Amino acid sequence: MVRFDDIIIKAESTAGATVAVASAEDYEVLKAVDMAVEKKLADFILVGDEEKIKKLIHESFPALDQSIVRILHASNPQSAALEAVKLVSSGAAGVLMKGHVETAVLLKSVLNKEVGLRTGNVLSHVALFEVPSIERSIFVTDAAMNISPDLTQKVQIIQNAVRIAHGAGVKNPSVAPLAAVETINPAMQATLDAAALTQMNRRGQITGCVVDGPLALDNAVSETAAGHKGITGPAAGKADILLVPSIEAGNILYKSLMYFGNSKVGAVISGAKAPIVLTSRADSAESKLHSLALAICTSY
Amino acid sequence: MVRFDDIIIKAESTAGATVAVASAEDYEVLKAVDMAVEKKLADFILVGDEEKIKKLIHESFPALDQSIVRILHASNPQSAALEAVKLVSSGAAGVLMKGHVETAVLLKSVLNKEVGLRTGNVLSHVALFEVPSIERSIFVTDAAMNISPDLTQKVQIIQNAVRIAHGAGVKNPSVAPLAAVETINPAMQATLDAAALTQMNRRGQITGCVVDGPLALDNAVSETAAGHKGITGPAAGKADILLVPSIEAGNILYKSLMYFGNSKVGAVISGAKAPIVLTSRADSAESKLHSLALAICTSY
Repeated sequence: MVRFDDIIIKAESTAGATVAVASAEDYEVLKAVDMAVEKKLADFILVGDEEKIKKLIHESFPALDQSIVRILHASNPQSAALEAVKLVSSGAAGVLMKGHVETAVLLKSVLNKEVGLRTGNVLSHVALFEVPSIERSIFVTDAAMNISPDLTQKVQIIQNAVRIAHGAGVKNPSVAPLAAVETINPAMQATLDAAALTQMNRRGQITGCVVDGPLALDNAVSETAAGHKGITGPAAGKADILLVPSIEAGNILYKSLMYFGNSKVGAVISGAKAPIVLTSRADSAESKLHSLALAICTSY
Repeated sequence: MVRFDDIIIKAESTAGATVAVASAEDYEVLKAVDMAVEKKLADFILVGDEEKIKKLIHESFPALDQSIVRILHASNPQSAALEAVKLVSSGAAGVLMKGHVETAVLLKSVLNKEVGLRTGNVLSHVALFEVPSIERSIFVTDAAMNISPDLTQKVQIIQNAVRIAHGAGVKNPSVAPLAAVETINPAMQATLDAAALTQMNRRGQITGCVVDGPLALDNAVSETAAGHKGITGPAAGKADILLVPSIEAGNILYKSLMYFGNSKVGAVISGAKAPIVLTSRADSAESKLHSLALAICTSY
C-alpha cells in the first residue's frame, strides 16, 4: 500500500525538484509553499505580483521569509500563468502549480502552442486516496476534467494515471474500468469500453499496467466482494487505479471517499509535459502538500 | 433523521400487511421471511414448490414451522412469479418479494398486461441508507434499474422515490439531482436536467417534494460543504433524496455508502402498483429485513 507519508519522503529525496507557482500572491497558496519548503520537498519559483508576494511572506511566513525563494514578477495573472508555464517548458522547473489564477487561464497557457506544455494527449485529473476503512490506496481518474470520455480519451486517461502511479512507486498498477456490472452489456457503454480497454492492454496498446474490467466498485476494491461473486482477474478486489466512466461518477466517488470514507487525498493534472497541481481553496493544507509531493515524485 | 429501527416499528404497526413471495423454495429467502415473521412485520404467502418449501421450513425454521404461513403451490419459477403477481394485483397481498426466481422473469410478470402491476410509469430502484459518518439517512435513486434516464424518466424516478420517502415518514423530502458541479453547464446534461427538474417542481409538475439542483454530492449531504461554497437552497446540505444521473454513478454511490461509509441499507423497486422487494444473495439478512420493512411501510 502506497502512503502519502512515503510519497512525501520520496519527494524529499528527489534532488533539485523545482515548482513554478503561477500567481503566488495568495495566503493559502503561500501556506502550502511554506509547508513544502519546511519539509524540503522542492525549490519554488513564485511568479506573480512581487510586492504582494513579499508582503504576504513577510507578514505571515517567517520561515519562508528566511529561506531563499525566488520571485519572478508578473503584473497580472495572465502573464504570471504564461511565465510559470515558460519556466516549466524551458526546464527551469519540473512542476507547475496553480496560484491565485483561474484554472481556465492557467490551462490556456499550458495549451499555448509556442511555449506551452502540450503533448497531444488529453489532460486528465488523477487523484490518489488513502482509504482507512479498506486499508488501501487507490487512484481515481478522471473525476474533474473530462466529462464523458470516449474510448480513445479513456486510453490516454489511463496512460496519464499510470504515469502518476509509477511516480508514486506503484510499479505495474492494475486498472479497473468501472461500470455498474461486471458483465458486458450492449446497453451500457461503460462495459463495452471496459472490455475494449482490457483487450487493448493485452494487445500492447495500453502499457505499464494491467487493465481488467468492467468491474463494479465493490469488486474492484474488495477481494471479499469479488470472491463472493466469483470474479477473478488481476484487478478484481485489488485495483490500484479506478477509471470512472463519467465526470459525475468520478465526482461522486471522489466526494464519497472524502465524506463517507474520511480518506486522505492528493491530486494532479497529468498529460502535459509536466505534472500540474491545481489545488483549490476548499482543499486542506494537508491535501495541498500531498498533491505537491505526488507531482514532485512524478515530474518528468 | 429516519432510522430503520423506526421503519421496522412502523411496519409492525401496519395492520394486515401481506407479502407475496415468488418462488419461496430457498433457504436465504425463507430466512428473511422467518426474521420478518418473528418481528411480526407482515403475513406471508409463499408461492412456489410446496414440498420443497415445507421441507426447508421444517428442517431449518422451527418458529416459522409453528406459525400460520400460507403456501400456494406453483410448479416452476415462471408460474410462481405470475401467481405471486396475481396475489398483489387482486389485493390479496400488498408487497411483492422476489424469491428463487430470476429478476427478469419476475419483472416480466410484473409488466404482464392482463394481471400485472403496470402503472405506465418507469420502474425504478430506491435505496435508503443510514449513514453513520454523516449522521444522516439518504435515499439514492436509481442505482440499479435505469441506465441513463432522460428528463421524462427522471421525473418518474423522483416521484417513485418520493412515494417511498413518504411511506418511510419523510413528509416533504428535499430532492437533489446530482451532478459534478453546482452550476449549469451546457456541456453537462446532468446539470441541464437538474435545472429543468427544479423548475418543474416549482411549476407543480413534480409534487410531494422540493427539488433543488444541480448539486455535487458534498453540497447535497454536508451543510458545511454547502456553506463553504455559499450554496443555499432547500436541498443544499440536507437533501433527503439523491437523484443520480446514470446507473454507473448510482452504483458507485451505493457501493461507496456500503464499503467506505459502513451504512445500513434497504431497497425497493417503486413505480408498479405495489412495492417490490428484490433482495439478492449478497444482501445481509439485516438489509433484507430493512427492505421488507420499507416496502411494507410504503405499500399502497
